[in-house]
Amino acid sequence: MAQHKVIFDTDPGVDDAMALLFLDQHPDIDLVGITSVFGNASIDTTTRNALFLKQLWAIDAPVARGAGRAVHPDRVEGPPPTFVHGDNGLGNVAGVPDSVDIAPDPRPAAQFIIDLVRANPGEISIVAVGRMTNLALALALAPDIVGLVKQVVIMGGAFDVPGNLSPAAEANIIGDPEAADSVMTADWKVVAIGLDVTHKTVMTRAEMAEVARIGGPKAQFLSDVSQFYIDFYQHIIADGMFVHDSCAAVYVVAPELFTLRRGAIRVSCEGIAVGQTIQKPDGMFFPPGPWDGMPSQSVCVEIDAPAVMSLIKKTLSGQ
Amino acid sequence: MAQHKVIFDTDPGVDDAMALLFLDQHPDIDLVGITSVFGNASIDTTTRNALFLKQLWAIDAPVARGAGRAVHPDRVEGPPPTFVHGDNGLGNVAGVPDSVDIAPDPRPAAQFIIDLVRANPGEISIVAVGRMTNLALALALAPDIVGLVKQVVIMGGAFDVPGNLSPAAEANIIGDPEAADSVMTADWKVVAIGLDVTHKTVMTRAEMAEVARIGGPKAQFLSDVSQFYIDFYQHIIADGMFVHDSCAAVYVVAPELFTLRRGAIRVSCEGIAVGQTIQKPDGMFFPPGPWDGMPSQSVCVEIDAPAVMSLIKKTLSGQ
Repeated sequence: MAQHKVIFDTDPGVDDAMALLFLDQHPDIDLVGITSVFGNASIDTTTRNALFLKQLWAIDAPVARGAGRAVHPDRVEGPPPTFVHGDNGLGNVAGVPDSVDIAPDPRPAAQFIIDLVRANPGEISIVAVGRMTNLALALALAPDIVGLVKQVVIMGGAFDVPGNLSPAAEANIIGDPEAADSVMTADWKVVAIGLDVTHKTVMTRAEMAEVARIGGPKAQFLSDVSQFYIDFYQHIIADGMFVHDSCAAVYVVAPELFTLRRGAIRVSCEGIAVGQTIQKPDGMFFPPGPWDGMPSQSVCVEIDAPAVMSLIKKTLSGQ
Repeated sequence: MAQHKVIFDTDPGVDDAMALLFLDQHPDIDLVGITSVFGNASIDTTTRNALFLKQLWAIDAPVARGAGRAVHPDRVEGPPPTFVHGDNGLGNVAGVPDSVDIAPDPRPAAQFIIDLVRANPGEISIVAVGRMTNLALALALAPDIVGLVKQVVIMGGAFDVPGNLSPAAEANIIGDPEAADSVMTADWKVVAIGLDVTHKTVMTRAEMAEVARIGGPKAQFLSDVSQFYIDFYQHIIADGMFVHDSCAAVYVVAPELFTLRRGAIRVSCEGIAVGQTIQKPDGMFFPPGPWDGMPSQSVCVEIDAPAVMSLIKKTLSGQ
């Protein structure tokens, strides 16, 4: 019996596709909704990709289209990182249609999240692996959901390590820092899984090939999608890819593989540190400041990377 | 023969007093000047303390009075941290006179630094353990000194760890962030020794007592001064004190005890991350940003704390 109802807020995106297949295939997860957001590609592309993967992989969960830009009007999104995820957001793999003949849910993602959360009080884990924009909009529209969500597991941030879009900032956070600050400071349970640990989770090209061999057509397509991404990462990793987003998905079913540090989290929205996630660890004392009175959240500081990778490979392989 | 000419830029301050005695007593150091700056106490108090310690410990080096406030007019200094360093900046120890009957050098600290550096091209290490204000003013008055200073060793910053005045910022940097950014981005050699390693260097109360027993009256006075500071640190350390400033002094004579990471350093001057030191490690690549074109500096990321403490105790003991 599935134990964990999950809404997956995502910008597919290659590692997003992996996390989506993980969530759909893990027996303890009931994927109840998919919401798209801009980031790894435009909102048109990420929504198309979510619908396409739903169709291709026969995923039951509905897809709702989300935000196409940051909440703050001054934040102007640059061109999407096509050099990471490809022009089509799925590694330039062939066979991705321009449009998909299934329609998204008629509601915007924020309203879709609100409705699902209200219909399943205390039961839903939101796994958010793109900009936090949809969640910030949902919080603004329906503040009551903070008491109804089981937990918000995000892939985002860089706490004790450099970022990836600046020395201070990770992409999902700097892409909409005001939204991320809203999510971190809301009085719900947040678990932030950032570069501190996702940079320790690497799937090699050989492991991906093995997953594809065992897992059949779904895993084979994932492998095809991932080759461009693996090529991109060659400047950092000899022969593999970080599985950033899947780490957040794994947390839902195997939290014991993660070491957490508690403390209020704020997001810098100004200056050279824009997009930086800064935690005030519980038990440390400072003069009065912007962390005061904010809820204590969890930051992942260590990960059992071999066990996480093993679980990901097993699940993607359909074992 | 003394090998290292040092200007000590300081805000005494208890751990400043320890570093001053270390610099004066180490046989390989030629302490050529002392410059005061506000921080641990007001500029009146830190200058008085520098003159008092010069007189008490019969230190040859002249003292020049430095800045009493941050370079940026909007930075308003709060009350000094008397709960850390005492009302008199020297742990409320008895015997510190209201004024000292020796005069400081007539020049302001910035000009004093410029003159000494120009008179000793390529030879002077500046050990700066307070706000970076005097150095920033010297740079503004005489940009040519960047090519004449041997190195600038600072105690300041918190790179991969939380700060001590906010989760982002260490006291010496947040006390004048614009000045610190000037110093970090100048084209001279900077070695930043921050909380990442100074929080690993602790002198216990028993060790201090042993130093005082062996070292005679000078060390005994240092021990007396330090008791208030040790009491303050009881909320973090069971029975001892961080020797922050002495770490920077030790670096001059024993750089092999420190592990450095190279990369441009900027200081955040805005928002919740104000005062944060952020390094872009060499070899990591990011989109264009404020670190581009800035000189690569050194951040201390590991320290051989037992060896550093051993050298400090040996030197303070006069051994």
